[in-house]
Amino acid sequence: MKYAVGVDVGGTNIECGILDEIGNILVKRKFPTRSEQGVDAILESIALTIEQLREDAGIPADEIEVIGLGIPGLVDPEAGVSLRAVNLNWNQIPVAAKLRGLTGKPVFIDNDVRLYIYGEAAAGAGRGYDYVYGITIGTGLAAAFVQRGEIHRGHRFMAGEIGHVPVNPTGFACGCGRTGCLETIVSATGIAKQARTRIEQGETSLLQEWFADVKDIRSSDVSRACLAGDALSRDVLEQTGRELGRALAWVVPTLSPDVIVIGGGGALAGELLFEPMKDELNNLLLQDYRNHFAIKSAELGDHAGIIGSALWALQCNKQA
Amino acid sequence: MKYAVGVDVGGTNIECGILDEIGNILVKRKFPTRSEQGVDAILESIALTIEQLREDAGIPADEIEVIGLGIPGLVDPEAGVSLRAVNLNWNQIPVAAKLRGLTGKPVFIDNDVRLYIYGEAAAGAGRGYDYVYGITIGTGLAAAFVQRGEIHRGHRFMAGEIGHVPVNPTGFACGCGRTGCLETIVSATGIAKQARTRIEQGETSLLQEWFADVKDIRSSDVSRACLAGDALSRDVLEQTGRELGRALAWVVPTLSPDVIVIGGGGALAGELLFEPMKDELNNLLLQDYRNHFAIKSAELGDHAGIIGSALWALQCNKQA
Repeated sequence: MKYAVGVDVGGTNIECGILDEIGNILVKRKFPTRSEQGVDAILESIALTIEQLREDAGIPADEIEVIGLGIPGLVDPEAGVSLRAVNLNWNQIPVAAKLRGLTGKPVFIDNDVRLYIYGEAAAGAGRGYDYVYGITIGTGLAAAFVQRGEIHRGHRFMAGEIGHVPVNPTGFACGCGRTGCLETIVSATGIAKQARTRIEQGETSLLQEWFADVKDIRSSDVSRACLAGDALSRDVLEQTGRELGRALAWVVPTLSPDVIVIGGGGALAGELLFEPMKDELNNLLLQDYRNHFAIKSAELGDHAGIIGSALWALQCNKQA
Repeated sequence: MKYAVGVDVGGTNIECGILDEIGNILVKRKFPTRSEQGVDAILESIALTIEQLREDAGIPADEIEVIGLGIPGLVDPEAGVSLRAVNLNWNQIPVAAKLRGLTGKPVFIDNDVRLYIYGEAAAGAGRGYDYVYGITIGTGLAAAFVQRGEIHRGHRFMAGEIGHVPVNPTGFACGCGRTGCLETIVSATGIAKQARTRIEQGETSLLQEWFADVKDIRSSDVSRACLAGDALSRDVLEQTGRELGRALAWVVPTLSPDVIVIGGGGALAGELLFEPMKDELNNLLLQDYRNHFAIKSAELGDHAGIIGSALWALQCNKQA
């Protein structure tokens, strides 16, 4: 048997797994990133974890074919270099070569969102579709496009950052230093912040009964309050869904996907978010596009990252 | 020597040319489409014209390798079928098979805008770039994306129709039956119509001195008046450029092109249109995208269609 390792490197945690060739996870482990210890110590922890997992699963060393890593920020997959990962404090790090040195295995790296969406395209909600556009609604908003199994990266590997198109000139400050970017609204953070801000500005909400301090409100609480009949929470999700619909009205004619896969914590709002999104999108799209693509929630949950990383690495290795 | 035929089928005229393998036009001819005579008569005219051109150029029949056709509307290039071309009154026409029957040569067809942009990517303003996003500003607005020599078509071959995203709910009626679509503003037609409408609504313009009837104003007149110092014309081109910039602010992060090629009659306004477009785009784009792609006018003029059709057909034939 042949196996692949998938690694999802986050700012807070790293998840490692060993998978078979069709994406089943045999063993996996999550551990804190502790980015302050530096890249070499982190990569040594990853190599050690892989070795332990392999022994736990009783897999011979030569049956591990390849290692795939999803890394946040800007990645050059061709050179195997992490160009810039702010949360990890990585700059121009030749991750693939370093980890290959530690493990003796071929290592392929790409941006974490791309490999998450690749996982959904290959083994999740996008399976069986040719043109998979995927979005993750998490702390921020990011996107990736997988066309017949090939990840679109564009010039300088920069395709996908639609979260930073300004949509509200009088909106919230964005992490990028500007104002009112799409992800200040369409993100888990943005959903919670809209609810908090409107309560602070004097609107009433069930959330005030649940939380003594509005700062404790999370996006999942907004969904919960909406389901309990809270008008403010319903309106926040409605506005958020419509804003995403307006963004997708540009993406659909540009790419013509046959499925849009929506993942990340913010997507757990499900139809509360998707219904207004679809309504707005149907209002804006040319007749020829309407109802000619599916809209689906991501299916692989938190493990889409390691599944995508492992399956993509297997594909790269086959082509190499 | 090997040669290719490029054919650009329009609602009004058809242009045929014989080209060498690097896209030089040896001979070409344009003739009226006369769509009322039906598809078979039109294809017979094309076959006859190709034969005449070949004789004029003194090329032996067996040195014509392949024929490429650009057709307006929705095209299935894999099946070689024109799915729908409203101006030609074509529906589900197996154009490639029919023309192959008449000529004995392999025939490849695609949407005319895609092959126009393919021509620019292969032999025009996009030459040397990997991710070419092209727009044609003509009667309408359409776009195509050519990635490392491959045309992106998307699901149902529908990618590229960004002209029909509504941007102004109180704007002009659009040919698609809706209101305020992008192409009601960003098109040669839209530029002329904005000027005409504002004059009819009481604004003053140099164009009133030039034209007794505002209906005679064309987009090129608006450029001309702008260069002659007309404030209204300047503002029309400025608003049009900014609207295009706002559209491109979604396209750039979605695709990450390294060049945007702008062609069609409306693009002849040049910097009068491109300057406000770039300004708006730079305001909206994330720092990482700014100044990392070129913006260029199309270079092949009216012949991009036949050049693109011929070069693309050669590429298809090589891969077949």
